[in-house]
Amino acid sequence: MRKIAILTSGGDAPGMNPALRAIAKSAKANGLEPYVVFEGYKGLYNDQIKKADELDLDYFLSQGGTCIYSARFPEFKNPEVRAKAIENLNKHGIEALVVIGGDGSYMGAQLLHEAGVKTIGLPGTIDNDIKSSDYTIGYDTALNTVVEAIDRIRDTARSHQRIMVVEIMGNNCGDLALFSGLATGAEIISTSEAKLSEEEIINAAYELSKQPGRRSVIVAVSEKLYDIKKLAERIQEKTGWETRSNPLNHIQRGGRPTAQERIWASLMGMKAVEKLLNGESGLAIGISKGDVVAIPILEALKMESDAKEKVIKKAEKFNTLNRF
Amino acid sequence: MRKIAILTSGGDAPGMNPALRAIAKSAKANGLEPYVVFEGYKGLYNDQIKKADELDLDYFLSQGGTCIYSARFPEFKNPEVRAKAIENLNKHGIEALVVIGGDGSYMGAQLLHEAGVKTIGLPGTIDNDIKSSDYTIGYDTALNTVVEAIDRIRDTARSHQRIMVVEIMGNNCGDLALFSGLATGAEIISTSEAKLSEEEIINAAYELSKQPGRRSVIVAVSEKLYDIKKLAERIQEKTGWETRSNPLNHIQRGGRPTAQERIWASLMGMKAVEKLLNGESGLAIGISKGDVVAIPILEALKMESDAKEKVIKKAEKFNTLNRF
Amino acid sequence: MRKIAILTSGGDAPGMNPALRAIAKSAKANGLEPYVVFEGYKGLYNDQIKKADELDLDYFLSQGGTCIYSARFPEFKNPEVRAKAIENLNKHGIEALVVIGGDGSYMGAQLLHEAGVKTIGLPGTIDNDIKSSDYTIGYDTALNTVVEAIDRIRDTARSHQRIMVVEIMGNNCGDLALFSGLATGAEIISTSEAKLSEEEIINAAYELSKQPGRRSVIVAVSEKLYDIKKLAERIQEKTGWETRSNPLNHIQRGGRPTAQERIWASLMGMKAVEKLLNGESGLAIGISKGDVVAIPILEALKMESDAKEKVIKKAEKFNTLNRF
Amino acid sequence: MRKIAILTSGGDAPGMNPALRAIAKSAKANGLEPYVVFEGYKGLYNDQIKKADELDLDYFLSQGGTCIYSARFPEFKNPEVRAKAIENLNKHGIEALVVIGGDGSYMGAQLLHEAGVKTIGLPGTIDNDIKSSDYTIGYDTALNTVVEAIDRIRDTARSHQRIMVVEIMGNNCGDLALFSGLATGAEIISTSEAKLSEEEIINAAYELSKQPGRRSVIVAVSEKLYDIKKLAERIQEKTGWETRSNPLNHIQRGGRPTAQERIWASLMGMKAVEKLLNGESGLAIGISKGDVVAIPILEALKMESDAKEKVIKKAEKFNTLNRF
Repeated sequence: MRKIAILTSGGDAPGMNPALRAIAKSAKANGLEPYVVFEGYKGLYNDQIKKADELDLDYFLSQGGTCIYSARFPEFKNPEVRAKAIENLNKHGIEALVVIGGDGSYMGAQLLHEAGVKTIGLPGTIDNDIKSSDYTIGYDTALNTVVEAIDRIRDTARSHQRIMVVEIMGNNCGDLALFSGLATGAEIISTSEAKLSEEEIINAAYELSKQPGRRSVIVAVSEKLYDIKKLAERIQEKTGWETRSNPLNHIQRGGRPTAQERIWASLMGMKAVEKLLNGESGLAIGISKGDVVAIPILEALKMESDAKEKVIKKAEKFNTLNRF
Repeated sequence: MRKIAILTSGGDAPGMNPALRAIAKSAKANGLEPYVVFEGYKGLYNDQIKKADELDLDYFLSQGGTCIYSARFPEFKNPEVRAKAIENLNKHGIEALVVIGGDGSYMGAQLLHEAGVKTIGLPGTIDNDIKSSDYTIGYDTALNTVVEAIDRIRDTARSHQRIMVVEIMGNNCGDLALFSGLATGAEIISTSEAKLSEEEIINAAYELSKQPGRRSVIVAVSEKLYDIKKLAERIQEKTGWETRSNPLNHIQRGGRPTAQERIWASLMGMKAVEKLLNGESGLAIGISKGDVVAIPILEALKMESDAKEKVIKKAEKFNTLNRF
Repeated sequence: MRKIAILTSGGDAPGMNPALRAIAKSAKANGLEPYVVFEGYKGLYNDQIKKADELDLDYFLSQGGTCIYSARFPEFKNPEVRAKAIENLNKHGIEALVVIGGDGSYMGAQLLHEAGVKTIGLPGTIDNDIKSSDYTIGYDTALNTVVEAIDRIRDTARSHQRIMVVEIMGNNCGDLALFSGLATGAEIISTSEAKLSEEEIINAAYELSKQPGRRSVIVAVSEKLYDIKKLAERIQEKTGWETRSNPLNHIQRGGRPTAQERIWASLMGMKAVEKLLNGESGLAIGISKGDVVAIPILEALKMESDAKEKVIKKAEKFNTLNRF
Repeated sequence: MRKIAILTSGGDAPGMNPALRAIAKSAKANGLEPYVVFEGYKGLYNDQIKKADELDLDYFLSQGGTCIYSARFPEFKNPEVRAKAIENLNKHGIEALVVIGGDGSYMGAQLLHEAGVKTIGLPGTIDNDIKSSDYTIGYDTALNTVVEAIDRIRDTARSHQRIMVVEIMGNNCGDLALFSGLATGAEIISTSEAKLSEEEIINAAYELSKQPGRRSVIVAVSEKLYDIKKLAERIQEKTGWETRSNPLNHIQRGGRPTAQERIWASLMGMKAVEKLLNGESGLAIGISKGDVVAIPILEALKMESDAKEKVIKKAEKFNTLNRF
């Protein structure tokens, strides 16, 4: 093997840049020539392939987003489309591909692997919703962004004695809401795994509004669970406290990667190259119990997430703690 | 004069804490005893008055929000309510009051001044919408928060080749949108003073989407001008680029005050005490041409803002610059 | 058991506040009455003990430092001093104590445990130098602070084509230098475990200065390994590149705790209360392989850190990666 | 005029990138072709000149440092060197040059102006030490960096009841120390214009250490005024409080430009192009009383800074305020 390529796929996530930098530099340190594919699988199909050296990867180490871009490309499920993509790789003499992205991206990587391209997947998504890894690239930065946003919102809530409903990304996996809720002392936390009914939220808010000396309540909820505007109105009606809804939206995706983000991303990138040099393929890199691990992508795609009951118990504990 | 009081009123703004700290400390440095009133005019009416020394004001210097709280209290227009408030001040032997807040708060201060209480107003609102001051307490921090948010959003827009509509606070005064737009290179800026029609925005977005090599477009608009969700849909339809709407909401209000915020707030706070020691009253402190100034509140309330044509010209210039 | 107390000891670390908040709130949620001891063991001796409710712990959740203060107090080794401390606890009817601090603080906790006070230790030090935990409270925030500082320094290095020697806290444990070095692409990393000789550093800098297109070199070293001013001079002499030394000093200790900091700190705080409720004592809480664990303090104090060879290998890998 | 060039000179400063972006984009908006010169006057001499379009200036808008680099080049005083530089400009058909830098850079610009090249100077230095402008590019970002650093240091000082001596950039002009001191409540502030003797500092620290309830003292001093390590030792000896010295060094230079930085830099950049289009030359752009102004460079170089007495009075006021 002499040449490898890297692409980023799915939603952009801070840490994708450090990951691809580590892959490219590791490759070079081991005598390989690294290439990048722009715009994910779409670019693979369209032959948007360049030598990694054409980018100043060291510069992008500290930057958010993905400097090689991403794109939606459902067409990659089509065998002819993939055949064209493989043809492009062959044309450049590229024998291996590292894909940084979410579950959907893993599926594409698996199909390429089955077609004979050496492929490795890295978990890249801010939602932390890849079951085969305790941590996904983008999650730590997004978590800090959410925490900082809620801290700001708390300033106003406290100044005006308000209740604030904050909507946080992560529909399949509520980690962002659950743990930012713990980190900011959100008095009411609800995620898809540990969903509270509107009545439960309203009643909890009502109880909190009666606590002597209380100046603020934060309700941290995962996206797509409620119509937060209406929920805020109902809370206000019941409690008599001014209540506002705050969807955090896209500010959660971007931003400079945190220290931990860059570290895990780099370590996983280095592991990907190690595995390729070892002749391995079809693997998903991940973090498990504090270590960088690699398991077959097929296995990764079939994994179950944490038992739902465990998450529910955790959410209950955090809700209890923060209301005292 | 031996005792003075301070209150914050209207929406909370970063910099209120440094302002009130400077007032309290200046007062002490000049032999006065400072008091604070909690929850604005409402607390004045309800006698929520304490010695400033009961708070660790040095601690709050670096903190967002207002540590003496704020509240809506339209009842203060009622003369009997004001009489009760003045009675409370008298009871504590407090002869002067410094009010930090917006135009509405100034009006209350003026009425107290007319009733014989020495009053001084400080401009506190993140919107920069007080005509008598080039700068209002909270504006610089909010501006930085918006800029940081748009920078993050740009990361994603660039990674995915998207158009992002960002809604920014400031309905009467579009400074936050106008200047954050300049600072982030927002390609399309629209404020209440220099409002673009939806068609103008959509057409501009379309032109930009045709520029070779372009990866992102930011549309920075002041709040309440458009239904941004629908606007985003219309832009997407016309340009074919994925387009998303992002209201920034309450993350704009809170957060640690910037350096400049603390400095202007402190200088204005010191000036307020100087004026009171000088026996003056009924004044609005402000920043004009880089200096701390004081003018009669009545005059301040009647001032006109910058000629609308000047703002429109500025907006046109920024829009032109950012689209090249 | 009805009353428990909390103290922070050793160098302050961001995350101590979230930890003690979680302990106090967990205690209350379980029917216990939490107390705080000001100024560590010194305050225990001087009876600086108050009900936790007298502090607004929710406010301090997002704040750096320790709101119950810390102090050096070597006198605690003295049995009579400890007897007085225990007498103070008895006076208040406090039966258990949670200590947040470093190895030295653990030793004090162990002695109290042996004297019959129920004690639990939590790892609090920015250096990550407590062998019984993969992560110590303060480390993640300090790591981010160092990374941000080096990013800034890189801006100047790149603008002026310079070499910058950055001195980072962590004398016994080089994790801060090692991992901030990875996260910032520091081309030369040296820690106490994987120490490079001055000659090695100078030669590496010389090689790097000859790479075509290179604009900057960062040398990340742990504190107390070199006279960095002289080292910078020697590098400049050899390479001909302007070289500057930058000790990061105390900016590394403070600052708002990161998301991860607050999360781990809270989880460990909750575990401490769980253990006390379980009747256990003499335990050190820690993070091991991603889980919160508890082991006897005595065992914790005897643990060996990672095999030195493993750290050296890691450092070599990072040095290799970053120089490509 | 059809082609103009831009260079950055002297110490790098955040805001240089937004300034040169605004110049290049304004130029294009007005039908001119912008060029950039790498590495300041040195690059002008060495013909390191490229079309501005070769850089992604929009990307650099939010980045610290200068993307076209800077360098020391005292040789530019030499007439033959300048002749070569002018020859290079002629070769490319470049008729005008905008220089972003400090006083020294202005001198070079003036000499080019006298030799017939149209030149405009923009004030770029974090120290705010250009007398012809109330604000210099880089100052607002550096000020915020210093404030954030002192806030962190305060966390530790307060936790341990310590005195911290913080050394801040700005030898000729103490604005960074003076105003960061106000913004952080530094109890003792000393700058070159308002220098306190070591005895004054030590005595003030002693008085402060006797105040009941005080937990921390920050001593903010400009660089090169004292041996801060020895000063800290003397303070410790006198007060009995642990005292540490913290030079802030190069972390003050870099970092993402603040909102205000980008705004002033952009407005000044736009003004530079306006003046060139107007046929003017030999001008220094600056901010005066809140407005963008232009005065002859020669005049700018001869200007006196604020009356020293005024600065001394300000420093006295801040010192008084912060000690209460």
